[in-house]
Amino acid sequence: MKRRTIGSVNTGPLGFFDSGVGGLTVVRAVQELLPGEDILYLGDTARLPYGSKSPETIRQFADEDARFLIARGVKAIVVACNTATAHALPSLRQQYRVPILGVIEAGVDAALANPNAERIGIIATRGTIGSHAYQHALALRRTGLIIHGQAAPLLVPLVEENWIDHPATAMVLKTYLDPLVEKGIDTLMLACTHYPLLIPLLREILPDDVCLVDSATTCAEHLQKELVNLNLLAPAGNEGKLEIHLTDLSEEFEVLARRFLKKAPGRIHRAVLGG
Amino acid sequence: MKRRTIGSVNTGPLGFFDSGVGGLTVVRAVQELLPGEDILYLGDTARLPYGSKSPETIRQFADEDARFLIARGVKAIVVACNTATAHALPSLRQQYRVPILGVIEAGVDAALANPNAERIGIIATRGTIGSHAYQHALALRRTGLIIHGQAAPLLVPLVEENWIDHPATAMVLKTYLDPLVEKGIDTLMLACTHYPLLIPLLREILPDDVCLVDSATTCAEHLQKELVNLNLLAPAGNEGKLEIHLTDLSEEFEVLARRFLKKAPGRIHRAVLGG
Repeated sequence: MKRRTIGSVNTGPLGFFDSGVGGLTVVRAVQELLPGEDILYLGDTARLPYGSKSPETIRQFADEDARFLIARGVKAIVVACNTATAHALPSLRQQYRVPILGVIEAGVDAALANPNAERIGIIATRGTIGSHAYQHALALRRTGLIIHGQAAPLLVPLVEENWIDHPATAMVLKTYLDPLVEKGIDTLMLACTHYPLLIPLLREILPDDVCLVDSATTCAEHLQKELVNLNLLAPAGNEGKLEIHLTDLSEEFEVLARRFLKKAPGRIHRAVLGG
Repeated sequence: MKRRTIGSVNTGPLGFFDSGVGGLTVVRAVQELLPGEDILYLGDTARLPYGSKSPETIRQFADEDARFLIARGVKAIVVACNTATAHALPSLRQQYRVPILGVIEAGVDAALANPNAERIGIIATRGTIGSHAYQHALALRRTGLIIHGQAAPLLVPLVEENWIDHPATAMVLKTYLDPLVEKGIDTLMLACTHYPLLIPLLREILPDDVCLVDSATTCAEHLQKELVNLNLLAPAGNEGKLEIHLTDLSEEFEVLARRFLKKAPGRIHRAVLGG
């Protein structure tokens, strides 16, 4: 898997990393939009979740994740994890020359594609909300926005348990969202890669006119534009392969991977970081 | 903090480790029963939780945790984590000479102290239930028991959010417990150090005649017996100190530590494992 540039295409794989398997929702969206891209995915399942940990620890983990991918010749890296994007993207970009994309810019672009967006709610892990990365990026792009960040730490475990239509999940979502709805949000940003699986339930709970913006599809569109700009698209006719590496393997993670990808993940490899 | 034996007492601290701060419920119970013991507590917050990870990874983490404590001269180790006890206790005991206690034997002793216990429910993380460690230990001790293990992975996040009397938590508990109640359990083992905080809600949900057995108080009683047997009690009149080390520090962990201990945790140190 060496990085080779041939004219305006590049045969290296795209590298993705996440704290676990939630980032596979982004992979799935990318596979739909860019089926010719080879993908190397790293999930740090031995140390997941990142969302509740300190910025310093998340930066250290993200650095080890990026090194793993770079050592395998990826042509670009997608930080398919909102918490890692929020805390580690600037330092990763300073340190490495390979193009590195996060999920935040893409989400912010998509939310502000609606010229009428004025009151924006954000749900995410405690780490992402506490970083103020989304709030900052939004405020820099449009003045006068009213932004409400809501940490929603119980949603990841509920999605991982596949309780995506359980009444307890509806109750948890209402607890998080009622204050945002009362504040009249017109847009809700799902700022965690696990949340796309909650869209059907969110649609039931939220008023019809609230626009949902998720990390997976917006990141795929953003990635496509960047690959075109950087002349990094895979050669035409390539049949994209997906290779998944996890720092901890278990049957449970395989079941989750299948759920996030909406298909069988193939053989999953055990990754050893560091060194 | 060197280990020194003086007659029938020992001035070294007791070492505790857990994946995070949940094991502080055990510390709290030990402080009530054995107020003269110095305690050195290690919480592996950078890699929590252990409950959803593979046996191999949990054994590796537990080994690093035990080494950290042994290097600091503890006179005995309490594995204050059900998942780590379930997967790693036998290998730790093989490898190290310091006495090592887990939470499982203590819980099983306590559950079977009732001679009429026949139908025993166990709630725990997926890792603990999947290890069959409780089921095995119970079956070895009394024949004819009817044992029902129920993985309850959403309870740890709910307790960590302090939703200990939230209606969503009641709904989650009912989802897990209704099948056990239908099977007529007479005893429910709370086989995770987080669960003692749910006892008030459990009392509301469960029939009055179901006996609750928790890891914290049973482990403290078991530890007291072992320290007496091994001549390892702290000197009379000693004022027990608690020193907490965590592999990741955050305000959130401090808040949680206070909740589990039911008092201020004092200064928390950053631990670096391995090497």
